[in-house]
Amino acid sequence: MSEENHSVRVTFEPDGKTVEDSSGTLLELAQAANTSLRGDCGGAGVCGKCRVQIVKLYGEVSDPTEKERDHLKDGEIAAGYRLACQTKILSGKCTVHIPPASRTAKREISGLGLDEDVPLDPAVRKIHVKPEKATFGDPRPDIQRLKDSLQAGDELKFPLTVLSGLPAVLRSSGWNITVTLWKDKLVSVEQGDTSKECFGIAVDIGSSKIICHLVNLVTGETIAKANGENPQIMYGEDVVSRITYASKSPEKLKKLQSLVTGTINSLIEEACRESGKSPENIYEMVFVGNSVMHHLVLGIIPKYIGVAPFVPAVTDLVSFPAKDIGININPDGMITAIPLIGGFIGADAVANILISGIYETDDLCLLIDIGTNSEILLGNSKEIMACSAPSGPSFEGAHISSGMKAVSGAIESVKIIDGKLLYSTIDDEKPRGICGSGIIDLVAELYTAGIITRTGKFRNLDHPRIVVRDVPRFIVAGKEESGIDNDISVSEKDINEFLLAKGSLKAGWKILAKKWGIAPSEIDRIYLAGSFGTHVNIDNAIVLDILPDIDREKIVFAGETAVGGAKIALKSLEKRNELKEILKRVKYVELSIEHSFQKDYLASIPISGRKS
Amino acid sequence: MSEENHSVRVTFEPDGKTVEDSSGTLLELAQAANTSLRGDCGGAGVCGKCRVQIVKLYGEVSDPTEKERDHLKDGEIAAGYRLACQTKILSGKCTVHIPPASRTAKREISGLGLDEDVPLDPAVRKIHVKPEKATFGDPRPDIQRLKDSLQAGDELKFPLTVLSGLPAVLRSSGWNITVTLWKDKLVSVEQGDTSKECFGIAVDIGSSKIICHLVNLVTGETIAKANGENPQIMYGEDVVSRITYASKSPEKLKKLQSLVTGTINSLIEEACRESGKSPENIYEMVFVGNSVMHHLVLGIIPKYIGVAPFVPAVTDLVSFPAKDIGININPDGMITAIPLIGGFIGADAVANILISGIYETDDLCLLIDIGTNSEILLGNSKEIMACSAPSGPSFEGAHISSGMKAVSGAIESVKIIDGKLLYSTIDDEKPRGICGSGIIDLVAELYTAGIITRTGKFRNLDHPRIVVRDVPRFIVAGKEESGIDNDISVSEKDINEFLLAKGSLKAGWKILAKKWGIAPSEIDRIYLAGSFGTHVNIDNAIVLDILPDIDREKIVFAGETAVGGAKIALKSLEKRNELKEILKRVKYVELSIEHSFQKDYLASIPISGRKS
Repeated sequence: MSEENHSVRVTFEPDGKTVEDSSGTLLELAQAANTSLRGDCGGAGVCGKCRVQIVKLYGEVSDPTEKERDHLKDGEIAAGYRLACQTKILSGKCTVHIPPASRTAKREISGLGLDEDVPLDPAVRKIHVKPEKATFGDPRPDIQRLKDSLQAGDELKFPLTVLSGLPAVLRSSGWNITVTLWKDKLVSVEQGDTSKECFGIAVDIGSSKIICHLVNLVTGETIAKANGENPQIMYGEDVVSRITYASKSPEKLKKLQSLVTGTINSLIEEACRESGKSPENIYEMVFVGNSVMHHLVLGIIPKYIGVAPFVPAVTDLVSFPAKDIGININPDGMITAIPLIGGFIGADAVANILISGIYETDDLCLLIDIGTNSEILLGNSKEIMACSAPSGPSFEGAHISSGMKAVSGAIESVKIIDGKLLYSTIDDEKPRGICGSGIIDLVAELYTAGIITRTGKFRNLDHPRIVVRDVPRFIVAGKEESGIDNDISVSEKDINEFLLAKGSLKAGWKILAKKWGIAPSEIDRIYLAGSFGTHVNIDNAIVLDILPDIDREKIVFAGETAVGGAKIALKSLEKRNELKEILKRVKYVELSIEHSFQKDYLASIPISGRKS
Repeated sequence: MSEENHSVRVTFEPDGKTVEDSSGTLLELAQAANTSLRGDCGGAGVCGKCRVQIVKLYGEVSDPTEKERDHLKDGEIAAGYRLACQTKILSGKCTVHIPPASRTAKREISGLGLDEDVPLDPAVRKIHVKPEKATFGDPRPDIQRLKDSLQAGDELKFPLTVLSGLPAVLRSSGWNITVTLWKDKLVSVEQGDTSKECFGIAVDIGSSKIICHLVNLVTGETIAKANGENPQIMYGEDVVSRITYASKSPEKLKKLQSLVTGTINSLIEEACRESGKSPENIYEMVFVGNSVMHHLVLGIIPKYIGVAPFVPAVTDLVSFPAKDIGININPDGMITAIPLIGGFIGADAVANILISGIYETDDLCLLIDIGTNSEILLGNSKEIMACSAPSGPSFEGAHISSGMKAVSGAIESVKIIDGKLLYSTIDDEKPRGICGSGIIDLVAELYTAGIITRTGKFRNLDHPRIVVRDVPRFIVAGKEESGIDNDISVSEKDINEFLLAKGSLKAGWKILAKKWGIAPSEIDRIYLAGSFGTHVNIDNAIVLDILPDIDREKIVFAGETAVGGAKIALKSLEKRNELKEILKRVKYVELSIEHSFQKDYLASIPISGRKS
């Protein structure tokens, strides 16, 4: 029996926590792993709150119990949904996704749904060498001694700072040093053997969130994580406002740049403090971001990404000294920007391609990364089509009268059962607004419950929750129960805003599928990327046509793919170099100039989904 | 006759001024050229002050007149010495050297004795291009449009500053720009066609003087010159004191660095003001200097050049962004350091090799560049031997009780005729001290007049100019005629200091000649480099064995070779690249470890020259 236990390995997503060697139920394993899975009835199979989805399984799982059949629909069981308290993994390994409704704890930056392991081949290498001591009979200059000890020739480049520090380091170390190379550039010379202290940082610069992972470049391990809000949000929640602000003057551009770099520096400090490492020993930062974030962090005016013909300054992978943008890693360390695909398809899409591996599979994959501009990729090893759907900020909770970001107090899930509305909030705080996943649930539930039409109009203004204040509004949480001394509601205008957004998204994947010459249902696999993907109710997303209606088991919650893709590029020069070739196979589809766009878009706005 | 005139072209050195189309005497030509030649008797052939040396002649010159034969010795006439007021160039072209004693005017930075013309092939190129305007159907990013317009590929590098400025420049110029390349690096993108505004600066960073030449890199012309004192002199006249000071702390190193870079920046401003050009349009600075100056300007601690085994940090040609050391040319312009040969043989020696062309002739050439450490080169196209003679600062007027640099009021030449001492000072000011060329004259004249022995001892303390104050001293200028309210004198100790210096120099070329396997008299040509060379009295230098005793016409006054060599490297990438190969043929001879050095040195201290 103990042998059987040893062969069991369960990873809980989005927390990314793994448990081995245990014979308990998934709920017990989850509790041992200290994840955020609810277990309100104590594992008695009564409350049904511990509903989870087995997304990958290489082994055997126990059959569904009677209690599970009571709480779950047949389709759900087929899609891998189980009650954690009733389920045991009998052998092998599996990945279990915990949907938002089944989570309790304060949400943390999630781990990765996809594997980021690659053979280690970083741009940064540290080499411990003992150059020959200078003697009277051997007049080679210091840098030549160093080159000779590395068996390097003229291809070795060095900045002046490293050269000017070299004579003292060579002598104070007793000719015993560790050299750091970034490709063929000498970035640091340190006393003694510090070859194990070799780190890099991967950063996902999102419009609203910045995520840093500190990676040990000798072992490949992620040793610390830190994340923070993108403070540019003060100058506009959406990227368009930031483009406008940054384009007003060089000072304002500089302002937005330093807001981001300042935050990155704080996060680097935090990650270093947490892991007991020194920023001096971080030699490269690889970052991803959409085109606007990419330009802003590099201090490039993003103005021309924002106006027709929407041309970025640069799309290729570029590297510059970190000090050029004031990033506080090793003074001669480098920053590397993952390439962009075009003005609307940023480096995060490239990171998605890299980590999902859709560029090397024969399966036809759809990858959706929802944001203000949602990135949609469809393809396989032969070709990848990419488009950007201007879905607007409603998926992020903005431009909706009671909308808010996914932070404490946001209504993140909604259910209408027998006419009764139930909701849950992040951190179980009093509701302060509705975030993206809550809006999806709300609209889908309103539709499923027959309260709104396919075009988002209220069927019956006499509904007890509908009030007319200027316009008709559906009350989600009344003033008395909310945390903001006001009703939390949606109007027809809000619903319309949302339907326009999802229409744009649907038109995007519909056009890509049409161009590929297949029906959306023929897609082999769908990757749902980003933190949004890990919190959304998939069934409701399908009801609203945010995703094509395919078998649930073909849907992969890809997690925080952007920072994961950046880590792959940080850890593997081979993968990084491969990007150029991969991106040649990516075809950018500008939706707005597509012949059928207007028609497809209009047809995509109404809800067409089955009432599940 | 007018045809004959047209074929005459005379260049006066060290001023570097050329006159064409004139039938006057050399004195009249010199006056027309506004040089500093004396003509005290108005060209009557009486005073003999207009004595000049014809150093190169490709044509015919008038025969010596009776008056010339009165003033000049036969050997002098054979060596090309003439009275300018009596001499006419009948045809062809010639170069005339004006010795210090024949000069009147305030001395200026001299022109070059040697040709610095090379086929133009600078590292910096400006190209006027019109990249294709961005359109909706053509989503190439800005940098790609630029690359395509240049037909450049991935080899084109660009700093972030250039990239970040690119979108605005492309659009405000109406897609009409001028690109500046430094090798394969994009250093600037400017609006419109500025391809003619392309400049570089060559700088000779001497221990005492800094010389800047502003060069038009489209025409090859030198368009402005500026020079100033090296303010590091506050921290020591000799390089050893500066090594000591700079090695005390990083702040003190920084201090010495910024003193030089600050002066260079002032000189750049001055040269730009004079020529009406903008420092923004200077894209490269090429500099030469001895090893210590080289390290100090780059901010590299020079400590280990100063202590055994005297190893520099770097000797190869290196280039860095100008902003790394705070040089105010174009923000992304480059600085390039001419390579060093070793700790004691600096980049000025390399510049000497480059401009003299001794690396490409079959003639065996000796090149002497006198300074605190005098550089001596002996060789031809096959091999060049280089050594550094620690001649001390006495040639520069230091470490001598009345010594001073070659500035206003310095006694620069001395003559003892029939027991009567005559001297001339720079700018004809009252004497304030004796500079290098004055000391050479003084010691040689004291020896020739029998006042000192070969070992520099006073023969007769009863000489009317010898007084004993602590030690015996020879009064050159009494308190009453000096400009410093004190006697200007030399003691036996001063003379000894000088003899040690010239002994070191002589031992240097003697050992090189011995290693080459020839007698010094067999040398085909001697180049005397630097401003010292243009002011020294050759006969006296030979009396004192500063130079081997060879035919005077084999001696070339090479002038300001250091800045000239830097200009060649600035103007020709081919020559610059050739340096690596040339320097492979340079063999550094460390005198102090030579077997015979001690013996040769001791034997070289006494004066052995003929009393001419």
